[in-house]
Amino acid sequence: MKDPTEREIIQILTNQYIDQPSVPLGFDDDVSAIPFSRKTWIIVKTDMLVGSTDVPPGMTVQEAARKAVLATISDFAAKGVKPQALMVSLGLPAPAKKTTVQDIARGLGQAAREYHCKIIGGDTNQADDLIIDIAGVGFADPKTLVRRDGARPEDIVAVTGPFGRTSAGLRILISKREIDFVKYPSLVKAVRRPTARLAEGIALAKSHATTSSIDSSDGLAWSLHQIAQSSKVGISLHTIPVATEVESFAKEHRLSALELALYGGEEYELVVTIKPQSFNKLKRRVPSLKKIGTVEKKRFGVAAQIRGKQVTVEARGWQHFT
Amino acid sequence: MKDPTEREIIQILTNQYIDQPSVPLGFDDDVSAIPFSRKTWIIVKTDMLVGSTDVPPGMTVQEAARKAVLATISDFAAKGVKPQALMVSLGLPAPAKKTTVQDIARGLGQAAREYHCKIIGGDTNQADDLIIDIAGVGFADPKTLVRRDGARPEDIVAVTGPFGRTSAGLRILISKREIDFVKYPSLVKAVRRPTARLAEGIALAKSHATTSSIDSSDGLAWSLHQIAQSSKVGISLHTIPVATEVESFAKEHRLSALELALYGGEEYELVVTIKPQSFNKLKRRVPSLKKIGTVEKKRFGVAAQIRGKQVTVEARGWQHFT
Repeated sequence: MKDPTEREIIQILTNQYIDQPSVPLGFDDDVSAIPFSRKTWIIVKTDMLVGSTDVPPGMTVQEAARKAVLATISDFAAKGVKPQALMVSLGLPAPAKKTTVQDIARGLGQAAREYHCKIIGGDTNQADDLIIDIAGVGFADPKTLVRRDGARPEDIVAVTGPFGRTSAGLRILISKREIDFVKYPSLVKAVRRPTARLAEGIALAKSHATTSSIDSSDGLAWSLHQIAQSSKVGISLHTIPVATEVESFAKEHRLSALELALYGGEEYELVVTIKPQSFNKLKRRVPSLKKIGTVEKKRFGVAAQIRGKQVTVEARGWQHFT
Repeated sequence: MKDPTEREIIQILTNQYIDQPSVPLGFDDDVSAIPFSRKTWIIVKTDMLVGSTDVPPGMTVQEAARKAVLATISDFAAKGVKPQALMVSLGLPAPAKKTTVQDIARGLGQAAREYHCKIIGGDTNQADDLIIDIAGVGFADPKTLVRRDGARPEDIVAVTGPFGRTSAGLRILISKREIDFVKYPSLVKAVRRPTARLAEGIALAKSHATTSSIDSSDGLAWSLHQIAQSSKVGISLHTIPVATEVESFAKEHRLSALELALYGGEEYELVVTIKPQSFNKLKRRVPSLKKIGTVEKKRFGVAAQIRGKQVTVEARGWQHFT
């Protein structure tokens, strides 16, 4: 019997819960929801950072703690919901050093301040590895929240920024090649000090012109496939949004820039679909918004036609247990 | 520099957050709260179970998963709040076996059904150890929610059941002495299949006669000290509520039954204070309720006078990193 992958594990878990009354947002959406009233849902998201798998060499404990919060914030951003409060569950190897705890506290506090949410409680435990599990809580009007499954044919497919920085940055951190740290500081920063697109996500949701949205933490290709699959549509791309420094880095290291941009992970941009007549207006509010393709009626998955050449966009991305 | 204990770690963390606007419930209460309206607070609690420290030998993965949920439910019980929804963050060692994942799913689903709450989402990760972090979410009227700091002089101190079963049961599981498994099944069950006092907690809160409440997951002595300290009162006990089987087990193994009852942990009873005139009426609604002492004006901590003999109740209990 083959051992299950992360996505198979999630399938086994959710299969066990199918006898429950249905949930308002699917288990595969970025956040979960509890209906409170007709006009208000409570939005919850948990995201766990694990030292041995999620913290690359060269990343400080303070940066890891900040990033743990950011991963949760990014999912709220994708739905256009402001996170109000955070709960912090910690696992720390014993003995826990005072300075380590202080660094964790600083990283958590820093992220909370950056995104104007409050840490209201948590749980502290002894564990074999560093574990930082962040639960975020917020409120949303179900009519404003942007789901994964709302993309419609002719919608514009757009992203909030260029891709590939974290996969390139991760290679730099792992290789420890000093010259790359000097030449490509923005790639290293993308891994160590990422940014969540919260303001952008809220603006996109408020417009009521964003028909679907997902954060790209499992990679651009995977995010596009998720929208296509949930919305039962196809996605046709006319460009792959590769960051300029990633082009240079890829060229220098004989890597495929498209590969770095499509199949990275922990890249906290938003991948969205927008009503065609609203794109230009939205672009003025969210200047980083970049059109990369269109939604098609036919369910062919994701296809890309780049300068007349067909590029395959596979349904793969970052996952544990593989 | 001495390495910090669990409580010192929590202090370091919360000190970092003091620049934040104040929280409606203290960081030391059982749950955290987000005010939504004058009449409604959103209640959140996270509790992390770690395989290497929280799962004794002889406990199955399914039991561990059920217990992880139960620990969170118990904190809701102490505040008299019904948990509505659960988020499950998992860390699993790779490769994850399908049967292990199924057992975890079964344990989680079982607990959710027992306490009528719904699993609405989560996060799955690869980790070096089994991690099950449960976030619970519910709604409460702030006037009904029972805090830790409301005990007043002359209130009755009561518990929802007898103590010592989990500390005795844990000894049986660790020693693996077969005869004890046969003689003391209720002690083993207390560890492997504990119960949360959710119905009792809700009834106690609804009465508006319960002035303070805490769950006893860090031990009876610690819980009493927490109420005394938060409420700025003393607590005087006339009895230590030891379970009958714990008396027998302690006698047979030459252990102190009082020690087992006072300084255990992961025992999910409620420790409460009740307005004196309301105790008998409440006792009819919550039959397991047992009076063990009274609240005193003087802040002397916790003292016990058992059959004319002074028994010291120290401010210690279960904590990590010691």
